[in-house]
Amino acid sequence: MRVADLTEEQLLARIVPELPAGAATLLGPGDDAAVVAAADGRFVVTTDVLVEDRHFRRAWSSGEDVGRRAAVQNLADVAAMGAVPTSLVVTLVVPAELDVDWVVGLARGLAAECGPLGAGVVGGDLSGGPLVVVGVAAHGDLQGRAPVLRSGARTGDVVAHAGVLGWSAAGLASLSARAAHVPARFVEAYLRPRSPLAAGPDAARAGATAMMDVSDGLLKDAGRLARASGVRVDLDRGALAPAADALADVARGLDADPWAWVLGGGEDHGLLATFPAGTELPAPFRVIGRVIGRVVDGAVGGVVGRGEPAGDDEPAVTLDGEAPGVATGWDHFAGRPG
Amino acid sequence: MRVADLTEEQLLARIVPELPAGAATLLGPGDDAAVVAAADGRFVVTTDVLVEDRHFRRAWSSGEDVGRRAAVQNLADVAAMGAVPTSLVVTLVVPAELDVDWVVGLARGLAAECGPLGAGVVGGDLSGGPLVVVGVAAHGDLQGRAPVLRSGARTGDVVAHAGVLGWSAAGLASLSARAAHVPARFVEAYLRPRSPLAAGPDAARAGATAMMDVSDGLLKDAGRLARASGVRVDLDRGALAPAADALADVARGLDADPWAWVLGGGEDHGLLATFPAGTELPAPFRVIGRVIGRVVDGAVGGVVGRGEPAGDDEPAVTLDGEAPGVATGWDHFAGRPG
Repeated sequence: MRVADLTEEQLLARIVPELPAGAATLLGPGDDAAVVAAADGRFVVTTDVLVEDRHFRRAWSSGEDVGRRAAVQNLADVAAMGAVPTSLVVTLVVPAELDVDWVVGLARGLAAECGPLGAGVVGGDLSGGPLVVVGVAAHGDLQGRAPVLRSGARTGDVVAHAGVLGWSAAGLASLSARAAHVPARFVEAYLRPRSPLAAGPDAARAGATAMMDVSDGLLKDAGRLARASGVRVDLDRGALAPAADALADVARGLDADPWAWVLGGGEDHGLLATFPAGTELPAPFRVIGRVIGRVVDGAVGGVVGRGEPAGDDEPAVTLDGEAPGVATGWDHFAGRPG
Repeated sequence: MRVADLTEEQLLARIVPELPAGAATLLGPGDDAAVVAAADGRFVVTTDVLVEDRHFRRAWSSGEDVGRRAAVQNLADVAAMGAVPTSLVVTLVVPAELDVDWVVGLARGLAAECGPLGAGVVGGDLSGGPLVVVGVAAHGDLQGRAPVLRSGARTGDVVAHAGVLGWSAAGLASLSARAAHVPARFVEAYLRPRSPLAAGPDAARAGATAMMDVSDGLLKDAGRLARASGVRVDLDRGALAPAADALADVARGLDADPWAWVLGGGEDHGLLATFPAGTELPAPFRVIGRVIGRVVDGAVGGVVGRGEPAGDDEPAVTLDGEAPGVATGWDHFAGRPG
């Protein structure tokens, strides 16, 4: 059965029963708007859109895959503030010829990610259109804590990461190359990224000074955090080596550089955070570098001043004190590295 | 200058300065998520999407028109709950060849509607794609009041409407027919609908028992309210006649029926509400009908029981006691009457 065979209300009748209600939902779908609890008098909100043939291909991704990915990339942004997700609303553009089961699968994918967290899918809007477009706005509860911003990193902090690095890029490269033997976990990481969502609020409780979702590649996003905080970040190649080692076999088969995936690959949706030195890090955060001051007289890594920013022509992120030699990340907007 | 000539960050640098900050905004754009105040411990949320060549044509609508429309259709849903808007987030898909000024115009259109209300545009996501798609999620503050649902109408209530009826449909029909002489207010009502947003919270304060945004046509939406409330609605042709009279000249020129626009035209974004009989209605609400019981033994309009629902094969809405003889509304999803 195709979308064109149903009215909007008939299609909604297939979708809505799949959606999780959510523990904070005071009024769910069906009225002009939903009502969600915001216990501490504030809510966190973020939004992201997935466009067919730019962010996913229907030949590779099931409806459930796309639903999971649409949920996770938004939930990771909520977690990166140190918040617990409460609710999502979804806009969905679907072609007339799309299989209704694909749309129901998308709802199940949203539910699979939101339900276990107690987050509800509380509203949405459907439209026809020439290709699939999935827009999500996600909301979270800071539980009385201050939001953890990108701008709070201080000289002397440790830089830590939770999640995988380069897995999504390795999976995408494998699919693109039609590689014969690819460990399923990399392809799955691309199709259905996993984010360590609970680590976001855990990091906030542990005193994280800055945090962000790593969606555009470690170097690019670390650079954003560094510039927002007015500091520089030096990453430790040794601490990142296990991530590169995990990708070595796949990279060899594709004649690729695993370090390019670790440092530049997007859409892994891990969390990058800074903590005061000596903080006992919540799992699964691992130290991957430190926040340093500005380079003066070639004394790379020397701490001078308190978090002086990198100049416009200086790298905000170094690797063992040197400028990294790989592409800096993925430009979602342009759909290309950049 | 085209979108393709800029990076995402360059395009954002053109857009973000146009956006209103919002009185309830605790943290605006630039981090993983925004933070918005929800003073009474709840927030209202709704979402709607506009798709090029389905909901608007770039030949007719400027970027500012589309921005205004995307804002208003969401703000009207917030108002229809009796809430005051606080914040919007926006997903925007844009073709590479789109003029950057069009995108900046869209941001200005959002700002023009949100700014005067004190609502902020607090976040967004940009993507390339083959056509323009604008998704908005809007949030509101109930200010301690209960939300006004569709389901609260009671037998004996008056049915009231605020806003225009059929203007958007008349404007669209005029544009579609390339009519020579069309009062600009109808075309503007289609391109940049105006919603009596303040009337939503005013209605809630005055004791409205049910309320909704009229986006799919008066009969269709009144039918939804009636069915949600388990009652029937009888509309008063005499009370609606001025609305039809206002469209008579345009309709004559297009060989159209002004009543079809008044009763079936979508996207006017007026507010339909019910109030206990005798309520002093807040401006600009006007009585257009009443909530009645079920038809028994042909006694149309007879009040029996307390809000018994219309049967599946009975009309939930009548006009002077009889089944209306026009199309029931607009199916946004299918992009056709229905």
